[in-house]
Parts: sequence; C-alpha cells; structure tokens
Amino acid sequence: MISNENVYEQIESLSENLQEYILQMRRDFHQFPEPGWLEVRTSSLIARELHRMGYEVLTGEDVCLKEARMGVPSRDVLDREYERALAQGADESFAVTMRDGMTGVIGLLKNGSGPTTALRFDLDALRVQESGDPGHGPCREGFDSVNEGYMHACGHDGHAALGLGVAEVLMEIRHEWQGTLKLIFQPAEEGVRGAKALVEKGHLDHVDYLIGAHISESEGYDGDFIPGSHGALATTKLDVVFHGKGAHAGSAPQTGRHVMLGVAAAISNLYGIPRTGAGASRINVGTLKAGRGRNIIADNAEMEIEVRGETSQINQYMEDYARRIIASSAQMHGLSCEIREMGSALTLSSDKDLIERVRTICRENLASVKVSSLDSMHFEESEDFSIMMKRVQEKGGSATFMRLLSPLADVLHGKEFDFDESCLIQGVKVFAAVCHDLLQDN
Amino acid sequence: MISNENVYEQIESLSENLQEYILQMRRDFHQFPEPGWLEVRTSSLIARELHRMGYEVLTGEDVCLKEARMGVPSRDVLDREYERALAQGADESFAVTMRDGMTGVIGLLKNGSGPTTALRFDLDALRVQESGDPGHGPCREGFDSVNEGYMHACGHDGHAALGLGVAEVLMEIRHEWQGTLKLIFQPAEEGVRGAKALVEKGHLDHVDYLIGAHISESEGYDGDFIPGSHGALATTKLDVVFHGKGAHAGSAPQTGRHVMLGVAAAISNLYGIPRTGAGASRINVGTLKAGRGRNIIADNAEMEIEVRGETSQINQYMEDYARRIIASSAQMHGLSCEIREMGSALTLSSDKDLIERVRTICRENLASVKVSSLDSMHFEESEDFSIMMKRVQEKGGSATFMRLLSPLADVLHGKEFDFDESCLIQGVKVFAAVCHDLLQDN
Amino acid sequence: MISNENVYEQIESLSENLQEYILQMRRDFHQFPEPGWLEVRTSSLIARELHRMGYEVLTGEDVCLKEARMGVPSRDVLDREYERALAQGADESFAVTMRDGMTGVIGLLKNGSGPTTALRFDLDALRVQESGDPGHGPCREGFDSVNEGYMHACGHDGHAALGLGVAEVLMEIRHEWQGTLKLIFQPAEEGVRGAKALVEKGHLDHVDYLIGAHISESEGYDGDFIPGSHGALATTKLDVVFHGKGAHAGSAPQTGRHVMLGVAAAISNLYGIPRTGAGASRINVGTLKAGRGRNIIADNAEMEIEVRGETSQINQYMEDYARRIIASSAQMHGLSCEIREMGSALTLSSDKDLIERVRTICRENLASVKVSSLDSMHFEESEDFSIMMKRVQEKGGSATFMRLLSPLADVLHGKEFDFDESCLIQGVKVFAAVCHDLLQDN
Amino acid sequence: MISNENVYEQIESLSENLQEYILQMRRDFHQFPEPGWLEVRTSSLIARELHRMGYEVLTGEDVCLKEARMGVPSRDVLDREYERALAQGADESFAVTMRDGMTGVIGLLKNGSGPTTALRFDLDALRVQESGDPGHGPCREGFDSVNEGYMHACGHDGHAALGLGVAEVLMEIRHEWQGTLKLIFQPAEEGVRGAKALVEKGHLDHVDYLIGAHISESEGYDGDFIPGSHGALATTKLDVVFHGKGAHAGSAPQTGRHVMLGVAAAISNLYGIPRTGAGASRINVGTLKAGRGRNIIADNAEMEIEVRGETSQINQYMEDYARRIIASSAQMHGLSCEIREMGSALTLSSDKDLIERVRTICRENLASVKVSSLDSMHFEESEDFSIMMKRVQEKGGSATFMRLLSPLADVLHGKEFDFDESCLIQGVKVFAAVCHDLLQDN
Repeated sequence: MISNENVYEQIESLSENLQEYILQMRRDFHQFPEPGWLEVRTSSLIARELHRMGYEVLTGEDVCLKEARMGVPSRDVLDREYERALAQGADESFAVTMRDGMTGVIGLLKNGSGPTTALRFDLDALRVQESGDPGHGPCREGFDSVNEGYMHACGHDGHAALGLGVAEVLMEIRHEWQGTLKLIFQPAEEGVRGAKALVEKGHLDHVDYLIGAHISESEGYDGDFIPGSHGALATTKLDVVFHGKGAHAGSAPQTGRHVMLGVAAAISNLYGIPRTGAGASRINVGTLKAGRGRNIIADNAEMEIEVRGETSQINQYMEDYARRIIASSAQMHGLSCEIREMGSALTLSSDKDLIERVRTICRENLASVKVSSLDSMHFEESEDFSIMMKRVQEKGGSATFMRLLSPLADVLHGKEFDFDESCLIQGVKVFAAVCHDLLQDN
Repeated sequence: MISNENVYEQIESLSENLQEYILQMRRDFHQFPEPGWLEVRTSSLIARELHRMGYEVLTGEDVCLKEARMGVPSRDVLDREYERALAQGADESFAVTMRDGMTGVIGLLKNGSGPTTALRFDLDALRVQESGDPGHGPCREGFDSVNEGYMHACGHDGHAALGLGVAEVLMEIRHEWQGTLKLIFQPAEEGVRGAKALVEKGHLDHVDYLIGAHISESEGYDGDFIPGSHGALATTKLDVVFHGKGAHAGSAPQTGRHVMLGVAAAISNLYGIPRTGAGASRINVGTLKAGRGRNIIADNAEMEIEVRGETSQINQYMEDYARRIIASSAQMHGLSCEIREMGSALTLSSDKDLIERVRTICRENLASVKVSSLDSMHFEESEDFSIMMKRVQEKGGSATFMRLLSPLADVLHGKEFDFDESCLIQGVKVFAAVCHDLLQDN
Repeated sequence: MISNENVYEQIESLSENLQEYILQMRRDFHQFPEPGWLEVRTSSLIARELHRMGYEVLTGEDVCLKEARMGVPSRDVLDREYERALAQGADESFAVTMRDGMTGVIGLLKNGSGPTTALRFDLDALRVQESGDPGHGPCREGFDSVNEGYMHACGHDGHAALGLGVAEVLMEIRHEWQGTLKLIFQPAEEGVRGAKALVEKGHLDHVDYLIGAHISESEGYDGDFIPGSHGALATTKLDVVFHGKGAHAGSAPQTGRHVMLGVAAAISNLYGIPRTGAGASRINVGTLKAGRGRNIIADNAEMEIEVRGETSQINQYMEDYARRIIASSAQMHGLSCEIREMGSALTLSSDKDLIERVRTICRENLASVKVSSLDSMHFEESEDFSIMMKRVQEKGGSATFMRLLSPLADVLHGKEFDFDESCLIQGVKVFAAVCHDLLQDN
Repeated sequence: MISNENVYEQIESLSENLQEYILQMRRDFHQFPEPGWLEVRTSSLIARELHRMGYEVLTGEDVCLKEARMGVPSRDVLDREYERALAQGADESFAVTMRDGMTGVIGLLKNGSGPTTALRFDLDALRVQESGDPGHGPCREGFDSVNEGYMHACGHDGHAALGLGVAEVLMEIRHEWQGTLKLIFQPAEEGVRGAKALVEKGHLDHVDYLIGAHISESEGYDGDFIPGSHGALATTKLDVVFHGKGAHAGSAPQTGRHVMLGVAAAISNLYGIPRTGAGASRINVGTLKAGRGRNIIADNAEMEIEVRGETSQINQYMEDYARRIIASSAQMHGLSCEIREMGSALTLSSDKDLIERVRTICRENLASVKVSSLDSMHFEESEDFSIMMKRVQEKGGSATFMRLLSPLADVLHGKEFDFDESCLIQGVKVFAAVCHDLLQDN
C-alpha cells in the first residue's frame, strides 16, 4: 500500500493525465446537448464508460422512480428525441432502457466495508439557442451545439465529464479506499425536476456523505474552489392552463370567454406580488402560448411559471399568492384553469464539519489546488441537489455542495456561456481526494 | 332562342340537378380544409373543374400580385403544406403554379360584347380544431376535417362549391347572355389578406358588376337570401414582435429585459382602449407566443392582433391607439418592438340600385326562391370583399354582397359550425339568374 | 275668450317679453351652481318664484321619497352646503324644508277638468371647475361660478330658468287651457340619482303627458328644436369600497393586504370588458381615492364607476361583468369589498304620436319657431328622465324628450361649456304652446 | 469633582427621577400629534423646555435650510395647522418663528473645550387614524390623539420626550464633561424629508460624534438596547401628477385623455418591477387621488410613491425603472405627467469602533442597563438619520444609530402601535452615559 502522501500525488497526476479524455467528453456532451428526461445519448455514453471502467451500472427504471418524475415532456417529444439520440450515436444497449424519459445513470462500486459516499453530477442542457458568434469558445473550437434550440449553457456538460474523470481516478486507486462509492449522474436538474425521483427511489437513504458541485464565476474569489454553499432559493415550478370559450372577434366578442384577458391579469399581478421583508423572493412567467387565430377570441393558454424564496416559508408565500392570483384571474373572466406542479427545490445548507474536512483534506494534501478562503458561497439560483442533501442530512449523513471557480463568458443560461476547462481537472482532484479521505474504514 | 321565362325555369332546374355535384364538392373541400395562401389542393381542383367546363383558367402569378399579399406563412409551412396538398390529391398540373402561396383561381368566359360581371367566392379554412362530437353534421356524415387544427368553420367550403355550381349553370346557358363573366375564387379571405393582392393585380379595374355572398344565420329573416349588405367593420390586422434580453430568473432577474412584462402591459391596455361614442370598435389579441424556458427571463414574443371600427375613421383611431400602447409598453420595460400590417378591410356598402335590381330579378322570375323583405343585412364581421367593392365602385361599377340565409349549428368560427346545404342550391339559382340579367347587351 | 290664433301670438310675445327675466335667472343659477341634493338655494328661489306666480308649491319631503334618493352626499357636506346656500341668498322660508338633501320643487296648478300634463326641468350642477378664460362667456359677462369646483356645465341652469318662463306664460294664459299643470323641478339629475325618488313618491302615476327637454348641439340640424329623443344609454352607477390591511411598506410589505394592487387590477380589467356585438357599451372609473400615506400599504379605497349600454341587456352585461371583476380583484389580493348602487337610468323612447303632435302644434301655430326636419335625436348620454318616461308610458300616458338646439362652446361637462341663450326663449314658446294644446277639455 | 463611578450612578438616579416628567411629555406629544413640517406645537414646547434648562436654542430658519426641505405641505395646510397648534397650546414666542413649515429645534451647550457630540431625536407623527379600541394603551390611559387622522404610530413622541430627559440629565452633570453638546430635534423624519435640510444648513459639518436611536421590537433580543444599526433601505420618495383631458363618459369617451388608464398601467407595472438578485428592493404606491366625477373622464391624478433598495445602487435601479414606467404610462394614454422628489435616505452603517465604545461604557458603568449581545440590528425601514450619518462620517467623525428595545403592541405605523415606556428611561441613561464619556477633553 502506498503512503497517503503518495496517494494524493497520484490523484493529482492521474487527474492531469485525464485532461484529454475529460475535455473530449465535455466537448462531445456540449455538441449534443439534451434537455431534461431526453438525455438518452448522454446517459447511454456515460453508462458505457462506467461499465468499461468496471462499475456496476444502473439505468432506466433502476435510477428514477417513474411516477415521481416532474415535468416530463410529451410522448411525441420523447419518441422523436429518442430517435434523434440513436441517430447521434447513443449506445443502443443502454439506450433501450431509457425510452420514455427514463434517463440518468448510477455507477456503483462496493469496495469492502466502509462508509457510503455519493457524488452527484447533472447532465441536462437548456432550451437556449447557442450563439453562433465566431468568438464564442465552442464555435471557435468547433464543438458548438448541433441540436437546434438546445445548449449546455449551465456547465452540466462539464459536470458530467468531470464525473467520468473522478470515476476513472477512484477506480484506479480503489485499493487505497474502502466502502461504497455511488456515482449519481442525475437527469433533469434544470427545472429542478429530477432529484426528487432519485430520492423517492431510495438512492439517498443510506448515504453517509454526499458531495456535489457547480461551476461558478470566480470574480473576486481566491482559489480553485469553495468547499460549501448555502442559500439557494427554494422554488416551486408550476404549469398553468387556462380554458375559455372562442367566438368571432368581430361579430360577437361578448359571447366568448377571453383567455387573453385572464392571462394579462395573471401576469400583471404575479409580478406584482408584494416583496417580503423576510427575505428574497422571485417570480417568473417563463413561457406563454395562447390562442388559435387573430380573429378568434383566444380560448386556451399554457404558461410555465416559477416562484422562489430565500426560505421555504417565503417560497410558500409566493406559491400561495400566485395560485390565488391565477384562480382569481380565471374567475374574473369566466375561465377555468388548472395548475400542475412541475418541479421543486429547497434551500441549500452545507454541513460545517464537512466543509471544514474538505478544506483540510485539500489544503494539506493537494499541492496544485488552492482552496478559497471563503467557506461557503451564496447560491442565487435553485438547485435540486438540495432535495438529496436534505434526505441525507435527515438520515444522519453529511453533505456539501462545492463551487468550482472559473471566469464565465456569459451569465448562467446566457447564449454565450462558457468556462475555463481547467476547472474540471481541479475538480477531479478535489472530488477524488475528498472521497479517498472519506472512504476509510474508521 | 328560348324565351326569358323559360331561361329562369331552366336555371332553377339546372341548379337543382347539380345538387349532388355541389354537395360532393362542398364536402370534399370541408374534409381537406386549407388556410389562406395554402389552398393548393382546393385551388387546383377548382382550376381543373373550370377547365373541364370550358373556362379560360388563370392561376399562380396571374391571379394575385405576389408582393401585395399580406400574412403569407413562412417558407417552411408553405413547403410542408404544398407536399400535403399533393399527397391529398391536388391536381399537379395546376398545383405546380401555386407553390409559395400563389393560390386562388380565376375562370373567364368572354361571351360576345356586353358588360363584365365578376363573381367572387372565397376558399380558405380557419385554424380551428373541428369538433369530434358524433352529433356534429360533418362527423355524422363522415366528411369532417382530416387536417388537424384546420376547419372550414366559416362556410367558405360552401361558397367555393356554390361557385362551381354557378360556373356550370352559366356555361350551360351561355347562349342566353352576352358579355364577360369573371369567376374569382379568392384565396386568404380569413384575416382579410387576399383581396388586396387581386385588386392590385388589376382584376377589378374593368368590372361593371361585382357580386359576392356569405352564408349567414337566418334567425328571424324571411326568405332564402338578402340582396345586400352594409356596415362590415373596417379592420387592420397587425403582427407584433417584442425583443428583450434573457437572464437567469433566480440569480439576476434585474439584468434581463422582461418581454413578459411588456406583453402583459400591452394586452391589458389594448383591451382598455376607450370605446368611442362615434360607433362600434373592436380589439382582439388573438394569439401570443412568448419565452424560452420557465427559469429564463422571456426575451421574445409574437402576438397577432386586430382592430376594427364601424367607420374607417374609428378603425384608424383604434389602430393609432394600439400602436401607441405597444410602443409605450416596449419602452416601459426597455424592449424593442416591431409592428407589421398583415391584413386590412374596409366597410361594406352595397349599391342600392343593384340591390333593387337583384330583388326584382329574383322576385319576378324565380318561383322557388324567396327574397327577404330586408334590403340589406348588417355585417358584424370584416370582409375583404369590401376592398374589391370599393375599387369597382370607384371605377364607376356597381357591387353588392348578398347573404344566403341558413340556420347555423354554431357561431361563425365555432368548432361545431355547420349550415343547411340547401342554401347552396338556392344561391346558385340567384347568382345565375342575376348574371343572366346583368349580362345582356343593352 | 281670444281666438286660438291670438293665443299663440300671445305666447310668442309673452315669451319674448320674459327674456330679461329668464336670462337673469339663468345667470343667477349659473353663478351659484349647486350639485345634486345640494340645490337648496336654487330650489328655494324657484319655490319663491312659483309661489309668487300663484302656483301651489311642494317642497321638502313632499317632492322626493326620502329613502329612494341615490347618491346623497354625507351629512357633513349637506350641513356645510346648507349653510353656504343660506349665505348665498336662499329663501329661508322654503330652504328650511330642504335640509338633509330634500331638494327639488313641484309647482301645481289645478285649472278645471282636463288632462294632467307634467313638465320636467332639472336643476343641478356638476363637480367641474369652471374655466377662468376671459373669452369664456360667463367670465366675459361676469356670472361665472363663485362656488369653487362646481359649475353648470350641462345647461341645467338654462333648463331651470326656462321652466320659470314657461310657468309665467302658462299662468298668464290660464284662462285659455283646462286641466292640471305639474311643473317638476327635479334635483340630482347628474349621476341619474333623482328621478327615481320622484317616481317612487308617485308624482308620475296620473300623468297623461310628460315633456322634458335638453339643450343640445345644433351642428347640422335645421331648426330651433327636435321634438323627440331616443336611444339614451341605459346606465348603472356604482360606488366601490375596498378594505385591505396596512403595514410598513419598508419592513413588512408582505404582511399587508394591498388595496392598491386590487384597485389597479380592477381598473385595468374594467376598461377591458369585451365590447359587445349587440350594441354600444361604456365603462368609466370616474373617481378614485386610496391610501393613507406614502410609506404605508394602502388599506382602503373608494371608487365611483358607471356602466352604460345601448340596451338594458347590454347594461346588465356590463354591470355583471364589472361586479365580477371587482370581486375577483379583491379576492386576488386578499381584500374585502362593497359595491353600492348609486344611480340608474333606462333608454329613452319618445312616443311617435306625441312627437307628431308637437311638430304639428309648433309648425302650424308658432311663426317664430322652426321645427327641425328630424323627428328624434339620438341621445348618447344617460338621462333619468327615462325613468319618469317609463312610468308614464306604463300607466298609459305619452311622453317625449325634446332637444333645444344651440351651438355649444365646449363639450357637455367641459369647463368652457356655454350655449346661446336665445334657445331658452324659443324653448318657452314651444313648451307653452304644446301645453296649451294638450290641456284642453276633450 | 465626583468620581466617575459616582457620575454613572448619578446618571442612573437622575434618569429615574425624571420618569414622571418624561412620561408626561411623551403622552402630551402623543395626544397632539403633528405630521412633518407641521410640528409647531411640539417644536415650540421643546424650545421652551430647552430654554428653561439653560440651552442656547435655535428655531425657525436657523434650523433647516428653507429651500432644501422636501415634501412641505401646501400653504393652506401650513396656515390651518399653525392656527391649530396655537389653539392647542403652542408657545407663541417660539411658534412665531416656525410658520410656513420652519419647524425643528436645536439646543446647544458649549461647555469648554472638547469634542462636539450631536444627538438626534425626531418629532413628527404619521397620517394614521389611531385606534379607538379601549384596550389600546393610549385610549386606556386617556392620551390618545385628538388630531383626527394623525397619530404617533412610530414612537417619535417617545424619542422627543427621551431627548428632553437627556437634555435635563446632561445639563445637571455639565461639570462632569467638556466640549459641545448639540441636541437636534429634527422635523419631518417620516417620508425622510427633514434631515437633508439640516445637513444642508451645515449643522453636521463639525460633529465628532453623532448618536441617534429608535424604539424597536424586542422579540428574541436580550437586553435593553443594541448599540448599532445597519442596512436601512436607501429610498426615494416621489410625488407623481398626471394630466389628461376630461370628456363626457357616455357620449364621447374617445375624445378624453384617460388619466385612470394611465394610473392603472403605472401601478400594475410599478409593483412588477423585476426583483433584483443583488439585494432587497421595495416599491409602494401609498396614496392616489384621481378624477372629478363619476361620469367624467378623469383628467387628473396625484400619487405618492416610494422606492427602496438594500444599496443605493438598487434604490437607483428602482427609481430609474419607476420613472420610466410612469413616463411610458402617460405617453401610452396621451397624458402628461410630472414627477417631484419628496424625500430620500441612504443606507445606515454604524461605526464599529463607536459601537464597541458604547457597549463598553454601558456594560462597565450602568448597573441597571443590559446591553444586548447583538452589536448591530438590521433596519428594514428607511431612516434619514442616514443622511446625517453619512455627512459626519465623510467629515471624519463617527456615528451610530442605537435600538431601544421594547415589545410593541402593533407593527410600526399600525393604528394600535404602542411601546413599553420604561425603555425611555433606559434610553436616557444610555445617551447620557455615552455623552459623558465621549465629551472628555482628550
């Protein structure tokens, strides 16, 4: 057995040697972006890689509880995108288990007695049309999205590639650690739709340590990563459908039931929900589709909205108020409406002891990695890692969500989003070193 | 030469003998509904029929002035629907001239010296999903729409079939009349987009008499038809596009430029344009599509709207106010916007002398037709026949727009719209008798 | 007894001789304008004049049914304005009966057996600040309003003076007619609040003929008056109160219940009530008062609104929709609300026979008066004469509402409203001649 | 000279002996509440008291720079309230200098060489109607507001009384300290209107230490006071006036320019200004008055609004967006508008050294006072003390804003607001002890 000191040096050099592999995977994922529940190509390739490395691989119905998934696309879209994935090189032997939106992969390595450590990486892309600007990194390097209207504009391509790098390193040094390693490649993080289905399947029930990470803007921060996070906004995602009654807009508008009036009342008032003195809140009406023709009173509308809150209580205040506004807007104009929950997340709160342990492990052992002086970074967005975190913490385990620091070429979800790929290598080192330390039989 | 009295009896019996042909054509058109500028199948079959009967047939660029067409669908839609039309039995020899939205047909018969009489029939369907209720006439009889999302819910299927019946009768009795007969099968009446392009092509410049008709609810009216119309609302159709700036709805909503806020402000205020004491006005936001994703600040929206007015002045007041609201809503939220005119129509005003002449011809000669005691029916909708009518009247001709009376199973544009097909046969008699009378060398 | 011909000449010369008296009264009323239920000075002076002429005079609770009055000002205002009226020269002996908003006067002359003819004149001013422009007639002539914020901007000053002129003429020629003359000086026509209380008191139950009139713009009309009216909009006046909950706008806005949000939702949506294809409709939010302080969440609001419709059915559609919008706006923001009916009027419909009779009387007998060729003028506003008219017509009598034609210096209710006073003299002739003719024992 | 230890004991006993005086003054101020710039009675009585104690007293134009005052009431109101103040027992010799809104008082004691310490107390009441509930403290004790519509619902009655207590104690022990004491009784803190005018007058230019305080809810806090504050929201107060054009709502609504539509558009959109990820923001439309009559198109409106931000930058974002919304709403409906700034405040940031010093002084010397373990309390509201604080800090001095802890009977600005008067005595001890310590010649 090599000495601990040697192990960390080994982790650092293994990670650096994997640079070509990691970048190639990241760029491949970037070029073929797949939104939530449609990550068939991405999931199947990850499954193939994990299998190649020697992991036990779970896919399909072994990953997510089918009925706990939120915001699954329509059957038409699932079918069309499944065909697209096959055409773009999905591994058919795994893909076949992933039809109907059963994406996501878990890699398992039961490596003697010891604690269970789970790592979580997300996979999905956004419905964003990538910039074609020649100065945009992926364009310049020729790996920009070929899937029109979809883009990895939140770094999940990087997270997935990083996860494969970590898998490789930890398999390589498996004789140096003991216990169970669970590599969770989660689908549908965008829209905070996927974590709940993994949790409901029970995958987080016997986890001692849970670690995740997100690439984040490094401006003003000193170091390669921050060991913890806090404060992500709790959120609820709602789909709203209005039903009215059509009529000819010229001859008898008064006989219709005007969905467009209900929609305008709803939007105006949703954004006007009073701010709270108790902390931050958010409201967004992200998409809206209404009506059948210019001269017909619109009799249908679909709206995707979300609320957020600095605490779960504030999020609930926002959700309750939003539901009341929607119901009242419908009633005001004689409409009926339906509201469906499509996703939800809680606030993030990394365990202080685990933060401290991560800091110590990295500071004392990784010569090429600099830990930020900041313990924990405030998270402005929503993250359904929070749902896994809560389950682990409730069951007595510890969890943290780290921030891999990099300059960003655009805001999160912006069409020119890009990051410095070297943060992936640093991330592999951190994850591997921390896992090595946590997975000891003591 | 047969006596006049005999001619009218002949018109009546010819019309009745055509019943099977007319109903078959109407039901065929109903089953394969095609919206404006996409009437390739309908137009090509009408062209084939007119050609078979012996008319000189104009199609393609000989019908509409290409650049004067309003509200033409995108190239993608044109191409897809062209293929669909071919697959559904369009006559390829004519269809080939109709690519790229060059639909519509004119049938000409120059039959000696005499006045020019133009008849106008419209062809296009609506973007309405037809009811599947077994009690709905077309379902019961098995000719409901096979084109998902499209429906003849305004009777244009009947108008087109009626036009073919009139063509047949007038060809049959061509030795009884003298002059030029021009049968205009106009595309894209819905949205009042097509008439202008026919007028700009010059087809109405040398017309002495112009006659059109619409199937209308017969409640409370005494007779088979009303010889005139007045008062259709002047209208302007506008497409509106808003551009904003996306951003992550959780972390930095304040950096976006919120299209959804601009849209809600626009709609709320558009419907609130003050009513006018000078006469009726209308406003409708018919369709709206906005946003890219639930958690992204919406940065784009498209809206189809229309205004109407009892007079052109009121319509102008509505249009001006609407444009100001849209521009101000955009400015209010830091957006840019574009407004494009997609259609327009004027008020209708049938010539009193022609109304009287139509009444006299039918009352004195058609034993099986009852003329309503009402001279002219108020038209609540918009009709771009008005643009043809204005051109004919400005050039010294006369025009009228008749109303064929029938009970209706639903409101105009309603998904269960249907009419009593016997009104089509009565309509053929009226059109043919009136044309016979007008087309005399005196 | 003088011959009939002589009577009409006498009416004409008596009327012209009263010119100075009538103008003086009109200008006096104009200078001391009093809004509805506050016409203590105006009513008391009219009572004094009628008494002087020899009429039996009803005032106070003998005029209106106290509890049927709508939109009565608060006790404070009634008291303050009563004192103001006394200070401005009200006749105390009559004024004393008019406290607490019991204004209005009826002059009666039972003059032998014969039919009962009622004439109606309105008295009240508007809450409009009169223009101080030196070119404005009343300013130029020095009789502009001394009551700040109040103005006769609808001609009721002229109507009241005209009524006194008619009273004088008919008293003068009382030996020439037989029957009962009832001169109704109605309070609170603005806001259509007063007529109902007079009708409920029973004053219109035994009336054979009812005649009223309004000064109207003469543009394009040929003559001194039009004998009838039709089409005034049916209307309902509503007062709305919202109750919410205050809170500090900085520290805890979320604990308030925001009346301002409810108010904005209500107004935006009220103006957006869909126009009807069945005829004209109107909506107005005339006044609004809300909130207690800049940094306090507003917890109260009062709104005065009205709806109108070309038919009573359309008015009902508007009222029902408005009530639903108000209730839903309150519910949307957790508010409570109250809605109180403050006035109402019906559509106007002059009896054709009476119109014809008025035309004949005037054309055949009044050399100095020109009857318009128009029988009946469309009335765009609301008039609670309609409520009296309906009662008389229901009981078998006849009624008409005439239009005295004059150029107007501003729109009705405009701050520079003024008319040509000569129309008052012409009006006296018409009223007197018509009464003389109707009041004959046959 | 007595020993220091004795001084603090003396401060404690002097303060307790003043209890009756302080409560009597507080209750007197409470019973006669006067809003900003109208505090003639309050200011004149304070001036009289300070004069009696031996302070040099500044009033009238010596206190505020006249033209730098914001949100001064109209001349009518100033005159009326001046008379009211005299009638309610103002001291005429001082009141005479305070006409036209020149309220506020400064008491000066130049007591040898030493630093300058300024204390600030605010005076004004709110436009809140006090609860008449018999259980409400002031009602129970018989000192509830006699000025209808005004109430001390923010504790300034207590602050002013406390200031007089401090004045008395520090005068009593004037031989124990050296330097200049400046007691600033600031007018018009509500609406953050007054501090700027005092600062512009130069009163804060040579101040070494500035101390203020506010009574605050004690829930969960341990002790009598917290020595510092931070984070009050920066704010801007705006008055908005809209001008439109009246018209008769029945006959010609289209000829008006509808202020009510502009108002509704403005309010709806103001509350909808996107929340910022950079920190807390606020918007409130506190009051609104619009329109002249139910049946007249409203042609005028006045609105009092305010925005706030956790930082000055956020406040500026809110103000800029609000101004754009108001201008666009006016333009949208053809209105003109004016926006006037009526008040402003910055964020609060107590100096850490001074906080520490206050803590030490009190902890070590005042046996009967408990300092909270919390250094600084977050301030959710706005406070124009911040403007004074900024000037002192810019010139090199130190400042803090303390929190006197008490349970509160209602939220700030609530109509049942009340506090535990014992916090005033504790406050006197703290202010006096701290001043004694700061005012030493070293």
